[in-house]
Amino acid sequence: MSQLKIALLGLGTVGSGVVSIINQHQDKIKQMTGQEIVIKSALVKTPDKYKEEPAFNTIEITNDISTILSDPEVTIVVEVMGTIDAAKDYISRALTAGKHVVTANKDLMAVHGGQLEEIAKEHTVDLYYEASVAGGIPILRTIVNSFSSDMIQSVKGIVNGTTNYILTKMTEDNLSYQEALIQAQEKGFAESDPTSDVDGWDAARKMIILARLAFGMNISLEEVSVQGIRGIDVNDIVRAKDLGYKIKLLGQARLIDEKAFLEVGPVLVPETHLLASVSNENNAVLINSAALGETMFYGPGAGSLPTANSIVSDIIAVSKNIANNSCGKGFNSYHQPSILAEDAIIYANYYLSLHLENRPDRLSALEQIMAEQEIAIEKADQQLVENDISQVVIVTQPVNKAQIKDLKAQLEKEVDIELKTMYQIMDKEV
Amino acid sequence: MSQLKIALLGLGTVGSGVVSIINQHQDKIKQMTGQEIVIKSALVKTPDKYKEEPAFNTIEITNDISTILSDPEVTIVVEVMGTIDAAKDYISRALTAGKHVVTANKDLMAVHGGQLEEIAKEHTVDLYYEASVAGGIPILRTIVNSFSSDMIQSVKGIVNGTTNYILTKMTEDNLSYQEALIQAQEKGFAESDPTSDVDGWDAARKMIILARLAFGMNISLEEVSVQGIRGIDVNDIVRAKDLGYKIKLLGQARLIDEKAFLEVGPVLVPETHLLASVSNENNAVLINSAALGETMFYGPGAGSLPTANSIVSDIIAVSKNIANNSCGKGFNSYHQPSILAEDAIIYANYYLSLHLENRPDRLSALEQIMAEQEIAIEKADQQLVENDISQVVIVTQPVNKAQIKDLKAQLEKEVDIELKTMYQIMDKEV
Repeated sequence: MSQLKIALLGLGTVGSGVVSIINQHQDKIKQMTGQEIVIKSALVKTPDKYKEEPAFNTIEITNDISTILSDPEVTIVVEVMGTIDAAKDYISRALTAGKHVVTANKDLMAVHGGQLEEIAKEHTVDLYYEASVAGGIPILRTIVNSFSSDMIQSVKGIVNGTTNYILTKMTEDNLSYQEALIQAQEKGFAESDPTSDVDGWDAARKMIILARLAFGMNISLEEVSVQGIRGIDVNDIVRAKDLGYKIKLLGQARLIDEKAFLEVGPVLVPETHLLASVSNENNAVLINSAALGETMFYGPGAGSLPTANSIVSDIIAVSKNIANNSCGKGFNSYHQPSILAEDAIIYANYYLSLHLENRPDRLSALEQIMAEQEIAIEKADQQLVENDISQVVIVTQPVNKAQIKDLKAQLEKEVDIELKTMYQIMDKEV
Repeated sequence: MSQLKIALLGLGTVGSGVVSIINQHQDKIKQMTGQEIVIKSALVKTPDKYKEEPAFNTIEITNDISTILSDPEVTIVVEVMGTIDAAKDYISRALTAGKHVVTANKDLMAVHGGQLEEIAKEHTVDLYYEASVAGGIPILRTIVNSFSSDMIQSVKGIVNGTTNYILTKMTEDNLSYQEALIQAQEKGFAESDPTSDVDGWDAARKMIILARLAFGMNISLEEVSVQGIRGIDVNDIVRAKDLGYKIKLLGQARLIDEKAFLEVGPVLVPETHLLASVSNENNAVLINSAALGETMFYGPGAGSLPTANSIVSDIIAVSKNIANNSCGKGFNSYHQPSILAEDAIIYANYYLSLHLENRPDRLSALEQIMAEQEIAIEKADQQLVENDISQVVIVTQPVNKAQIKDLKAQLEKEVDIELKTMYQIMDKEV
């Protein structure tokens, strides 16, 4: 049986998961691919730390990338280091050296994915990155293989495990944002600096990759509307629940009149909707398409073995391409001009929570402002929260982004009306 | 651009869906495959009925299978007729004639799949059947491509849309089984003879196909434990709800100590579980595997366009294999000896509903019988339902199939204890 030799760049949690899966499931992999996959070498910063580890004793451990890139036996380079700059350099050099690359690096693929795919194509090698989005859920491969004759209209996902864990704990255990964040950090679901997760940037990068495959369009990070979860108050979660919703951090990529719109932000999801049952650190991606209607793909969004499994699935895909002599065709061959939707055509329902001075004319002032923006109210509820402050919760009928921006600007001018939060509401479909 | 010519066997709802998808999404398909897919001919019983139809005016319509099989231009034969015998004959002949075959025929693939895959292999042609299970959900391709380095421990699915629709209506609208069945028939979700759906045979066949891909084992229909939904009473649905469950017809394929067990039957699913939110005619498949833990794939289980989309995805997969010169490797290359699990190692919790004569010693008699089978009770509730009849609902702790069979036999001997229903309870995971 022929052997396929790979090199790992990085031997952290995900890298160790790759070693473990390849060792444990070698028999099944052989049967399904007709090849034996061997981890020949690994790049780490301090090789001495790993050399005593029995699990790695058949692996050549080095801190010199050039030994790996110049090794003619290494066919596939698996990048699981996670930084952007070094990884970009190493991956570019590996592709240029004629090696296939599998990476889990979402930050890199979101920003430089298009460019790296060009380099891969030029050198007729493969570049796969299933593990970069939603960890263990085979969502990229599914879009490429099973939606190729369908037209995807929207991709909506809970694609960040950290924020979903925090929101679950806030909802189920009535924790404050800070308490839930600390618990997530203790359990290893949040990093000590959680910025990228809680401010929505991690989800935004994943949505860019999803949109590239689903719509064939390259959207840049600056073009994504991003809102995180820091501002969410337990009060919003309770009020949402009273209305029949759970608050989730949702990434949304929508195609409106063939123009794309990407956003990340807290969204009120109907409690009966499948996405509302996605709890803790789990992920799910909901696709709406012309032929299939609604489909949803659920699973672990991170973790050593789930991420490693996606990487090994990519390695197996490359190994099949090698056997078929069909490398270099690109993970994704769908390309469209990237056109962005304008604010006036992007519609949604919204949930608004406002604080008003408790004077009878304030509510009518608020209604007046909304009427001026032609925003129709579906539901409004006023409650006294302090001596002279009322909370007003409003559910709007469908309004567009331009109206919403105007409303925000208008409300900022009002001294005794304070807009506390404004979140989208998801349709009660599914 | 090269053309790939296909022939359809059947032009019913699914066949028309294939025509529509290929015509509408030709540009995207061309971009993704580098080929143009052309429907050259179609086999129907009465060609005159179709010849006037504008959608079919570029298709050669015939009632003679041999014109299609002897046409050297036809590369792929797409079988969407749905019967077993004729389809088996035509598919065997097509494969033998060197044509690739795509089929949506679950009955055929469940019973003769292994044999047809052998014929395909022998003639180095492809045989794909994604559409045969769960309509639009790309579940077979996902198992083959994304679980090849993972070990699947169980596949649990709502894989029959008719019964899920009926159970949804019974649960949400308090309809009786008969009322819900009639509504399903009126909406086109149930056939006039609903036997295959409501008695669980359709789900059983799909579970056989899923188990073949997930475990690499060939299980025959006689080896599947099958129970339908005819016996479900609205009372059971209400009692299950009181306990926090929804009743779903679940197909389960489990691997216990590397031995397989397949069953179909009503199961109490925790209301908070993702599967409980799968309503109406929709399908979902939940996979439990070593590396990924729990993943779930949700979507439409039937319908013209969803099923047609799965077929076109298969056609595109075959077209890529043709371009790569890599046909005949089989949709699934995972094979294991098929060993069945014995009753004593198959454990689950159960829900029992019994009618007892309302005498004080009857409940203790029942508890005595259960104690003799070493069945521990987690919860028991007794209610007077008629003058002298009590209903007792019992939730057991984990018991094995042997104990359950003994209990059933024992209860049948008791004249004044009647076992009304006995369903499995799903773990409160996810």
